[in-house]
Amino acid sequence: MVTVEELTTFCKKKGLVFANSEIYGGIAGFFDYGPIGVELKNNIKKEWWTYHVQQRQDVVGIDGSIIAHPTVWIASGHVNGFSDVLVSCTKCNERFRADVLIEDLLNISASSLTLSDINEFIRTKNLKCTKCKSPLGEASAFNLMFQTFVGPKQDKDAIAYLRPETAQLMFANFKLVAETARCKLPFGIAQIGKAFRNEISPRNFLFRMREFEQMEIEYFIHPDKHDECPFIKHVLEYELLILSSESQIKGTSATKMTIAAALENNIIQSPWHAYWLATEHNWFVKLGCNPEHIRVRQHVTEEKAHYAKDTWDLEYEFPFGWKELQGIADRSDYDLQQHIKNSGKDLSLYDEETKKKIVPHVVAEPSTGVDRAFLLFLCEAYLYSKERDYVVLRLHPALAPVKAAIFPLLSNKEELTKLAHKIYEDIREDFPAQYDTSGSVGRRYARADEIGIPYCITIDFDSITNKDVTIRDRDTASQIRVPIKQLQQRLCQLLKQEIAFEKAGVLVKKENNTQHNSDDPTSNTQN
Amino acid sequence: MVTVEELTTFCKKKGLVFANSEIYGGIAGFFDYGPIGVELKNNIKKEWWTYHVQQRQDVVGIDGSIIAHPTVWIASGHVNGFSDVLVSCTKCNERFRADVLIEDLLNISASSLTLSDINEFIRTKNLKCTKCKSPLGEASAFNLMFQTFVGPKQDKDAIAYLRPETAQLMFANFKLVAETARCKLPFGIAQIGKAFRNEISPRNFLFRMREFEQMEIEYFIHPDKHDECPFIKHVLEYELLILSSESQIKGTSATKMTIAAALENNIIQSPWHAYWLATEHNWFVKLGCNPEHIRVRQHVTEEKAHYAKDTWDLEYEFPFGWKELQGIADRSDYDLQQHIKNSGKDLSLYDEETKKKIVPHVVAEPSTGVDRAFLLFLCEAYLYSKERDYVVLRLHPALAPVKAAIFPLLSNKEELTKLAHKIYEDIREDFPAQYDTSGSVGRRYARADEIGIPYCITIDFDSITNKDVTIRDRDTASQIRVPIKQLQQRLCQLLKQEIAFEKAGVLVKKENNTQHNSDDPTSNTQN
Repeated sequence: MVTVEELTTFCKKKGLVFANSEIYGGIAGFFDYGPIGVELKNNIKKEWWTYHVQQRQDVVGIDGSIIAHPTVWIASGHVNGFSDVLVSCTKCNERFRADVLIEDLLNISASSLTLSDINEFIRTKNLKCTKCKSPLGEASAFNLMFQTFVGPKQDKDAIAYLRPETAQLMFANFKLVAETARCKLPFGIAQIGKAFRNEISPRNFLFRMREFEQMEIEYFIHPDKHDECPFIKHVLEYELLILSSESQIKGTSATKMTIAAALENNIIQSPWHAYWLATEHNWFVKLGCNPEHIRVRQHVTEEKAHYAKDTWDLEYEFPFGWKELQGIADRSDYDLQQHIKNSGKDLSLYDEETKKKIVPHVVAEPSTGVDRAFLLFLCEAYLYSKERDYVVLRLHPALAPVKAAIFPLLSNKEELTKLAHKIYEDIREDFPAQYDTSGSVGRRYARADEIGIPYCITIDFDSITNKDVTIRDRDTASQIRVPIKQLQQRLCQLLKQEIAFEKAGVLVKKENNTQHNSDDPTSNTQN
Repeated sequence: MVTVEELTTFCKKKGLVFANSEIYGGIAGFFDYGPIGVELKNNIKKEWWTYHVQQRQDVVGIDGSIIAHPTVWIASGHVNGFSDVLVSCTKCNERFRADVLIEDLLNISASSLTLSDINEFIRTKNLKCTKCKSPLGEASAFNLMFQTFVGPKQDKDAIAYLRPETAQLMFANFKLVAETARCKLPFGIAQIGKAFRNEISPRNFLFRMREFEQMEIEYFIHPDKHDECPFIKHVLEYELLILSSESQIKGTSATKMTIAAALENNIIQSPWHAYWLATEHNWFVKLGCNPEHIRVRQHVTEEKAHYAKDTWDLEYEFPFGWKELQGIADRSDYDLQQHIKNSGKDLSLYDEETKKKIVPHVVAEPSTGVDRAFLLFLCEAYLYSKERDYVVLRLHPALAPVKAAIFPLLSNKEELTKLAHKIYEDIREDFPAQYDTSGSVGRRYARADEIGIPYCITIDFDSITNKDVTIRDRDTASQIRVPIKQLQQRLCQLLKQEIAFEKAGVLVKKENNTQHNSDDPTSNTQN
């Protein structure tokens, strides 16, 4: 498996991700996406939004601001409760995140330890500063929200916070959104946007950043209808293992079986919660993740966030071990009730059936880090090819930053470059393409493979007489000859995975590999 | 013309934009985009990115973090120089942005006044607090950057800033981007992202916000090649006035003539600067802006930013007057030289021709506020129809949040709803669509028109026997009958504006109205 150091080096070299402000020595926990990285990141967000919002009838989107009224964060509990435990060296003043220090020194899981547990550990195990070996002081809570002042006065009343999660904007805007978008339960509100946490120990490249991006849904249901999820059976059965672009195996992964069993045995309380776990798993698999690389895990009582009734994580096998990819919490009506209390506003909905006002429950909150998803798709795609002696980035075509590269066989023959450039201009009308004339075609293939371009098109002397070109497949290196007239259409079909390369060098029709249409649980909610 | 109050009310009612944290009374200068607004905003960003990055060979993108190493903002001059003048009431302590106060009280332009000018005005004109009428104190500079602390220590060394512009990330990453993306001059680096300014007086809805979003390009050229812009003639000639979806007039707008004349008379120094002014104008016009609603204006010496050699604004006629839509500054090599000085790093490029190292010049920095563009497209689209007695949002199809609405004629006839829902599911595979069964078809047309849905599709009893449906055009209310089999393709053509509605109710082929391909100035820069 690729190491995180290899990935970091690769990302810098190929323009995917750089440390922020590298010329000034960087700043821990902040990264900049380069020319190739920004396209991959945008594609991940676009695919998420299409799947979770635009192709569903029961989810609408918002885009809230990063700085909100500070009472939002008092109501949510973040001002009082959103903290990690910090411990300092009594001599050199170095500061550590206590649970991470304990995990590193004692090699145990410390995520569910309380503040007094931690102080107990430090005393009894006689833990020392890892830098100067002096004794550690008393551990204390450290709030992770970045704080600033809004307006010309810099006093207590002007304090505001950078949001530590996008979720609260969905709650604060709940009533306005439900009314203006005419939402009927069950329905979700989705958002993609930056969030900020002043992590004591940012680490593992894009895994734990101080500035990161979230893709979140708050899914609201009628409080009495936790059991009415008509599509649960279908979503649990639906599985398609795309192990590579060549082979497809239908089956049910271990993860799906775990979810089904947990539901069967009432370990997951609501089928809606299970539905979203399975749906999220499907999304990653649909975009090329090996389903066996994702597992589910229920939070133990001590590690649940203050708002959560029940939380399940999707975990991914990162290069540094199995870690949280996505947390899916059942937040019940905690947040809406908190905002009702703090704002004095009526945030209930009117239930036509019972003629009563109800406060909906958030049965699931699928919450994915964009940067973690980026890391996952990179890990899945990264393959050092011994045969080719370089890295091939086998990204799903929908995620590939550049969809096609166009090469004139020789760069100094005008009849070739003119035709090639014309083809390039036509193609980039429909999708991102690259025009490359530099070095041998082999060198150009290598450059294209390294940034995951699915198809390379070469224009040679035969192209002028026969009016056709070569398309080469990134993963198999197979080539076929296609008439220029059909090129655009063939590329579209290839990118949509309607057709594929056979080893023999011919195109074949693929089986339909998306069933997301029928995932839609709520065909008639927003009439 | 629509007033800003009307727009604000409309935006809230239809789910486009809300004041942030409205349930807590809002927070000045911060807004949340609702379900329809987020789609429009995303479409604007997508269209900008496609036009400025993906369809050009000479521009690459990045996505830098909002918080950067603080030295970035020392080098850029923002820590010392990015301020407005603040003045407080000596009695009630109310604070004002001094230039705005002077403009409001004296009805003169105050944007080029210095701090001592302002204090002079306050004394000689005897200006008073607008709230309690007491005397004003001494005015002073107020830095507009939001400040926070990064890491567990909250001391001087931990100070960091929320970026007040996206631009600096392009400079700080300049060398890494140029190398990894193999850029050759002239080339641009583009970025879309949030920026923050602690405005003393946020105002005019989305026009002056404290948290806003920018779409920026830094366009780098060889310092000795300011005059080598081969495409300037073409871009100045290229104009197509799309006054409505029905009528198109080719011609040259007053704005284009102004740019051409300024270049001719050396008022604009570099054809590259003129090229970008014209290109930006083209982008807005391409997406439906009346070219006569945009004008250009050169900054006078006093109002230029500290980094600018020459700045031109594109101004738009907002409901509150002609205001800056987009500033296009010639930043010369100011920023790169500052970062070279502060980082000690070599940020020069090697010039193959002269075999010398050169520090490129930023000849133009097309910088648009996403939110201002949103406001512009809203103003252009907003039309109260007397005939229909409601607002029709005549957005360009590429910007429309929802592309098509699907209505079964009656909601209680299963043969209709089943067919209609099937059509809806097919359509939303390709683009955002809405399914609506509530109320009369007339009421549903109204709801669709108000959020700018270009085409409504009605499924009636004839649809079952004849296998065809009605498509209705938002702007003309004309209707045509189309076979269900051809629906998808026709909709695609309509949305791409390849075909249009004739009054008579037939579809006709439209003239090609985009020439952006040939805008590309640098066909061979990234080989």
